[in-house]
Amino acid sequence: MTTVSWKERVVEARRRLAESIPAELRIEVPQGKINVQKEGIQFLTKFEKDIISLDATTLLEAIKGKKYTCVEVFKAFSKSAAIVHQLTNSLTEYFPDEGLLMAQKLDDYYEKTGKTAGSLHGLPVSIKDHLELAGHLANMGFVTWAERRSPKNEDGIVKALRQEGAVFYLKTAMPMSGMVLETASNLWGHVKNPYNTNLTSGGSSGGEAVMVALGGSAIGIGTDTAGSIRCPAAFCGLYALKPTCFRFAYTGMLFPSPSQISIAGCPGPIAKSITDVKMFSKFLVDSEPWNSDPNVVPLPWKNDIEHKFKRKLTVGVIKFDGAVMPHPPVLRAIEICRERLQREGHEIIDLELPFDSYELMQNASKMYFLSGFKECKKLCEESGEPLIPALEKVLERFNIEEFGGSVNFKINAYRNGVRKSFLEMWKKTATQTQSKREIDAIITPNSSCSAFPHDFLPWWGYTTTYNVLDVPSLVIPITGEYADPNKDSKDLTYEPINDWDKENYEIYDAEAFSGIPLNIQLVGKRYLEEDLIAIGEIIDRAVNKKGCE
Amino acid sequence: MTTVSWKERVVEARRRLAESIPAELRIEVPQGKINVQKEGIQFLTKFEKDIISLDATTLLEAIKGKKYTCVEVFKAFSKSAAIVHQLTNSLTEYFPDEGLLMAQKLDDYYEKTGKTAGSLHGLPVSIKDHLELAGHLANMGFVTWAERRSPKNEDGIVKALRQEGAVFYLKTAMPMSGMVLETASNLWGHVKNPYNTNLTSGGSSGGEAVMVALGGSAIGIGTDTAGSIRCPAAFCGLYALKPTCFRFAYTGMLFPSPSQISIAGCPGPIAKSITDVKMFSKFLVDSEPWNSDPNVVPLPWKNDIEHKFKRKLTVGVIKFDGAVMPHPPVLRAIEICRERLQREGHEIIDLELPFDSYELMQNASKMYFLSGFKECKKLCEESGEPLIPALEKVLERFNIEEFGGSVNFKINAYRNGVRKSFLEMWKKTATQTQSKREIDAIITPNSSCSAFPHDFLPWWGYTTTYNVLDVPSLVIPITGEYADPNKDSKDLTYEPINDWDKENYEIYDAEAFSGIPLNIQLVGKRYLEEDLIAIGEIIDRAVNKKGCE
Repeated sequence: MTTVSWKERVVEARRRLAESIPAELRIEVPQGKINVQKEGIQFLTKFEKDIISLDATTLLEAIKGKKYTCVEVFKAFSKSAAIVHQLTNSLTEYFPDEGLLMAQKLDDYYEKTGKTAGSLHGLPVSIKDHLELAGHLANMGFVTWAERRSPKNEDGIVKALRQEGAVFYLKTAMPMSGMVLETASNLWGHVKNPYNTNLTSGGSSGGEAVMVALGGSAIGIGTDTAGSIRCPAAFCGLYALKPTCFRFAYTGMLFPSPSQISIAGCPGPIAKSITDVKMFSKFLVDSEPWNSDPNVVPLPWKNDIEHKFKRKLTVGVIKFDGAVMPHPPVLRAIEICRERLQREGHEIIDLELPFDSYELMQNASKMYFLSGFKECKKLCEESGEPLIPALEKVLERFNIEEFGGSVNFKINAYRNGVRKSFLEMWKKTATQTQSKREIDAIITPNSSCSAFPHDFLPWWGYTTTYNVLDVPSLVIPITGEYADPNKDSKDLTYEPINDWDKENYEIYDAEAFSGIPLNIQLVGKRYLEEDLIAIGEIIDRAVNKKGCE
Repeated sequence: MTTVSWKERVVEARRRLAESIPAELRIEVPQGKINVQKEGIQFLTKFEKDIISLDATTLLEAIKGKKYTCVEVFKAFSKSAAIVHQLTNSLTEYFPDEGLLMAQKLDDYYEKTGKTAGSLHGLPVSIKDHLELAGHLANMGFVTWAERRSPKNEDGIVKALRQEGAVFYLKTAMPMSGMVLETASNLWGHVKNPYNTNLTSGGSSGGEAVMVALGGSAIGIGTDTAGSIRCPAAFCGLYALKPTCFRFAYTGMLFPSPSQISIAGCPGPIAKSITDVKMFSKFLVDSEPWNSDPNVVPLPWKNDIEHKFKRKLTVGVIKFDGAVMPHPPVLRAIEICRERLQREGHEIIDLELPFDSYELMQNASKMYFLSGFKECKKLCEESGEPLIPALEKVLERFNIEEFGGSVNFKINAYRNGVRKSFLEMWKKTATQTQSKREIDAIITPNSSCSAFPHDFLPWWGYTTTYNVLDVPSLVIPITGEYADPNKDSKDLTYEPINDWDKENYEIYDAEAFSGIPLNIQLVGKRYLEEDLIAIGEIIDRAVNKKGCE
């Protein structure tokens, strides 16, 4: 084994990363709480600022329409990314030379042939750590893998991205193992929230969310087994889709314990607009993921689903999951949404989860950590590094040990039971609505917090529930609304109903938690991603007053 | 606990079953080997024989066209079933009074309204033990459940059958726990092969296959986790479909360990014709199973897929899985098929499995018995009965104990690996065929045996492989071809390559194994059941010389 200590390896890895930032883009990072979003990114020209403000769909059109070259677009985003990283600590690798070469080649191709190289021609995409990008770092935040580079053969999403002309130039941080809802590791440190650097970006796809939110990349790809797409997208004011599992390819990724299948994981877009979510989801399905991931269902993308929803919506609201009361900004987001939808004539009915959410979380934890987290503990032992605090807490909180096959069978039966009860609840709404139709979707929080301090263990229930149910869900921000001490004061009369509720209640501080954008989660039916996005577009227009675009 | 011994409970259960057979239908059962299929069913009139010889599709048309009433159809099948059972021991419950009432009601409805009650109006359907039919026995061959009756609420397939006008009048036997490829239990004894009662019907859906083969029911419903649809359908000369998991509803069934999900199980039709397989599969999907089983993928049935195959086929053949050499009649079936397909201009290429089939089986056994078979052993302890011999053997053969979460993760990773390698092999065939297209399907045996003696533990690989891969497969019989000592003499030069191959080789006796119909397994791509059936129709016509029907 190596004689270099894990701390030395960390220093070396961070040094290499820091040195990859060109001298002319290095900045003095201010201490204390910063709202990077508000303060903006230094060194950018007006031209570059215009570029990074566009969503991916508009950007692709602009490149195709020759308003911008791929090189111009790449330069704006990669410059921005270098600065964003210094302020938020969100990268693990930065390789603009490779990106520039790709962009240049794409421009040449377009110039020469008059055709774009693919549907993502020139799109600067950030790549989450554990997606295997040939020759680049992938370590899932483990020091033992600090120098690990991905093999030559790409697969799944990365392969499809390359084929369709996306541009690669950075990899983003994820937390040790991916199994916490923040982005922290001994190797890379903590990823900071773009709106309040004292708080977490959320995780595990925190690096992706920060890059997209601050214009370091045009679109991001998260992966979600417990909330890892939705939590950072929500905390960073973005749109995102966690699809049904095995709708998109889940091959070509690094995992320490690849085959926890009771609650499978899934990849999905993190984006600046719902249009981008739709465009990228369609791209992922159009790439025929069933030809690279044998578990993917061969379900072609359904176009023109919108005609199904040329009527008022009927939407369920689950504001409180019965286990942990969301913080005031989170509750306010739901009420804003309810009010704006009702004002446009959509029907809202209140619903309750048809199972005990705390019990669900206990069962889910056994599914996630069925092996007693053996594989990840072994990776820590290899380098000598300790588990990160949030992981220590989660293993202790759930009394994690290695569980046997009979426990596995029981928790899978439990899983199928809650899926069934959720389906029955959904169907039963047809008898409860004025429209006499079953609900189109459910609005619920993405988290009990709008964001939280680094190294805190938050309640996972609001996201994990929909992983256990394996139903798709969308994150939709409420534009212009932020956690605000004047509107979101602590409810001093509230009496917590369990230990986790108590911790969640106690940590809330209206001042400390301020500035984070509000959002909702929109939950749909299994494998009906197209329907959910179409419903999401209607809700987005109603809530965010975008009129008919 | 009960003070009645398990043997007394068995005697009582069998007595009740025997008494349910009307006195006028009781027969003297001859000793020794019988070919029930050849000798025919006693007591049936020409009119009744005509009815039970029809496939389900033709029968439904005949009822709709008023050639037969539901009561006439029901009486022919139920009379036949009573006699079939006495010769083969294939029922667990017989309740013709209820069936007669259902048939009568359907006739009345049709008479009164001029409309059929549903797409299966008047179809006499056999119901495998563990499908929960309200008020009837369901015990999976466990003595402790000998008197267990299904709850009132039906779900899944049974519910859909009832809604569409199927007629219920019997339940068929399955082996203890369902996890062997014969149909044997301490409770009900052994189900015998219709073509040679010294051999097994196959299992676990042996009761279903025997009833359909001998005209005791018009169609059967099997369930398959390791070969339980395909093995009995093959051994009884029938057509059958094992679909991709979660294409059809898998709710409304009894399981001792409901949630082994590494290799999920699935239900599927066992039928007299491929037309019936198609009709019934379409019915199962048209019933919108995603509204009763939350795990089912909402994939509507694709009609008119046949136009895709208005060209010669390209078919792969995997004759030997590299682990256990099939018996001579099984190998001959593949060669008959190859020859008849080539004669019609279809292209055949030989393929090999891209993984070690023996290793696959070892991993699969850990998936199946992850809990150390605890739940089933407990059920045996409750009544005091022992495990059946084949289960004893399988647990010993695979060194089964309770496996922990880290083993679970490893075998799931193995599973995903073989799925990937199979997909890659399939795609690669495009570079190997003269047509330059990838293969349409794979022809392979359903078993290493054409059938086997009671209480023998056969090699599961030829079926289990396609459960692990979760790809659909069809059983197609080769009409008029049977295991024949004159054509299928033992290969005295063969040298077995492993312990299992040795046992399989040694048990073969051309004389003792004679009379069993030949068949092939046709394997397709995930979730493309419609394509597989369309390909199967072409192969069926070519192999079984049915011309263009």
